[in-house]
Amino acid sequence: MADDAQPEQQTYASSGVDTDEAARGLSGLLRWVSQTSAFADGVGASPVPGGFFAAVLPLNDRTSLAISTDGVGSKSVLAQLTGDFESIGWDCVAVNVNDIICTGARPVALVDYIALQHPHGEMLAALGKGMRDAAERARVAIVGGELSQHPDTLTGPSEGYAFDISATCVGVLEDGAAPITGAAIRPGDTVIGMASNGIHANGLTLARSLLLSGDAHETVGLTLPECGRTVGEELLRRTHIYVPEVTAMLRAGVDVHGLAHISGDGLLNLLRLDADVEYRLDALPAPQPVFEVIQREGNVALAEMYRVYNMGIGFCAVAPASSVGDALAAIAAAGGEAAVIGTVREGRRRVVLPQQGLVGEGSAFTQV
Amino acid sequence: MADDAQPEQQTYASSGVDTDEAARGLSGLLRWVSQTSAFADGVGASPVPGGFFAAVLPLNDRTSLAISTDGVGSKSVLAQLTGDFESIGWDCVAVNVNDIICTGARPVALVDYIALQHPHGEMLAALGKGMRDAAERARVAIVGGELSQHPDTLTGPSEGYAFDISATCVGVLEDGAAPITGAAIRPGDTVIGMASNGIHANGLTLARSLLLSGDAHETVGLTLPECGRTVGEELLRRTHIYVPEVTAMLRAGVDVHGLAHISGDGLLNLLRLDADVEYRLDALPAPQPVFEVIQREGNVALAEMYRVYNMGIGFCAVAPASSVGDALAAIAAAGGEAAVIGTVREGRRRVVLPQQGLVGEGSAFTQV
Repeated sequence: MADDAQPEQQTYASSGVDTDEAARGLSGLLRWVSQTSAFADGVGASPVPGGFFAAVLPLNDRTSLAISTDGVGSKSVLAQLTGDFESIGWDCVAVNVNDIICTGARPVALVDYIALQHPHGEMLAALGKGMRDAAERARVAIVGGELSQHPDTLTGPSEGYAFDISATCVGVLEDGAAPITGAAIRPGDTVIGMASNGIHANGLTLARSLLLSGDAHETVGLTLPECGRTVGEELLRRTHIYVPEVTAMLRAGVDVHGLAHISGDGLLNLLRLDADVEYRLDALPAPQPVFEVIQREGNVALAEMYRVYNMGIGFCAVAPASSVGDALAAIAAAGGEAAVIGTVREGRRRVVLPQQGLVGEGSAFTQV
Repeated sequence: MADDAQPEQQTYASSGVDTDEAARGLSGLLRWVSQTSAFADGVGASPVPGGFFAAVLPLNDRTSLAISTDGVGSKSVLAQLTGDFESIGWDCVAVNVNDIICTGARPVALVDYIALQHPHGEMLAALGKGMRDAAERARVAIVGGELSQHPDTLTGPSEGYAFDISATCVGVLEDGAAPITGAAIRPGDTVIGMASNGIHANGLTLARSLLLSGDAHETVGLTLPECGRTVGEELLRRTHIYVPEVTAMLRAGVDVHGLAHISGDGLLNLLRLDADVEYRLDALPAPQPVFEVIQREGNVALAEMYRVYNMGIGFCAVAPASSVGDALAAIAAAGGEAAVIGTVREGRRRVVLPQQGLVGEGSAFTQV
């Protein structure tokens, strides 16, 4: 895939996904939708900031709900090329439960929405198997779903197999528990990073545009020597589900100040926490080789890589330094892989990556 | 669009949407997904039958949740042709809240999922405006959503404007209230039908294939004389939201035995109620003219029309004969249009339409 000349520098936008324009478009939608918060009679005001990982609704003095919806982006295209649909079923659960647990809520129910060209039985069974396995790890019940046939409005590399899948997860906070929002974060707190399992379900359109040159049906089966896997296997690695790790920390009584799912926008997701602080991440582990391959193939700027991809860290927990030992022990006991990756400092809301020379504010990293 | 020769007989399947194959494919998915019901620790067993309009989760002795997810099918294609995106925003709320209220739950929160080719600002603002207006009528808060860019996997008649929208609604049953399931339905009960607002959001692929011949951008603007509207205006009429009517009945203390949203599968939706009875609907009003036009253009069998379309009735309530006066009064007070359309009889679970000579069992009507 590589040739000797330096490839033209690629960005997520040049692959067709313009997140800046999406942000502008979204603001036009939100201007209307935000007016609806007053319509649900008897529901309490949101205790989480706008744009948080999940919405939280206080139903009464005992129970609050957390609600989140997300899809797997164009990872479904990889499944069409390889026939591995189970990974996609898994991911559509994973991306949602990982958002729900950022509030401290326990995921309880999930519904899926599948838009597809044609209802192939073996494809749907494989999606179901993946969803089932993910639901078991996340301890969530899949209580409903919708199958919508769109024979002429979906397209993909395998005619008839185009589909898009998304899901919505509902979690509960019981016994009057308040959500974890980040509001308790203080300078001096520690940032714990939990390992991702590769690119998860973000930045797939860019990754496909760089790694699937020529006949995608062929290149998807080529081995990436750096990864020890084929392109398809690497890009379809399952999004790690962090529910057991987070549940273990909360059950152990660890004083968790903030929880952040590192999905699209990478480590900038820390800025969604309700704290005006600086996250100085000076002990990040080396990203998995797939990120180097993507960066090299597209001559992608490091700032862009860290904006689009998780770069090895799929979930963060912020805790006071005194709780870090207990937190790491709980995560390890749940089978998770985690390490201290940085600290919280006084300062304006930003993410500083000194090893990489990057500073992230708002929705972008800048090389400094 | 019509010519003198009798057109070839069209079905939903010949338009590319095969509901029988979808049912088989879905069973393969459900075989796996049904195993997840045991995974949500501490959530009570479902008090509604499988395949009900919404899932119901007892959270504790005080609160149960209702959850439903649905999209607007290919109605979004009409919006791309006409530029009327507000109708689609409205409908993605409507189809979901109408499912939630079948349980007697009060809709409280909704999240939307929009997959799109490109995040055009004016399109997103119009979708947001429609969602806002529908949310106001349904008294639901739109608490979150996901915008997912799929530049190369969606396609439609207006390049760059292809999109698919779906939503998930959550409702609550408070004070230990049990859901309305249909289990209280008895022979002798009355079926009340509430008027639909045209085809709502079902059977659009078939309707498009029949009414948008030639250049769809042109034919969408042609007037349908029978309807007094253009093709686009008629097919984009907003799905009626029945929340005010149902809320009025329940607040008035009407003894409601069953509530059924008449969406895809038409009046067969009555069979989703938890009652082994026959619904004899012998007083159906005349369907709106659009249904005659579709039937004529595609020479569609009457059994197929009643299986795919609502044929004028968008929502049904089943109540004991003694409550019908109160029910109709409550609906009228809420501004709704309703009439008695039939009765419940002892017999096996089926829908009998004597005026049309149709009997519906399982997922199909048969001409008798």
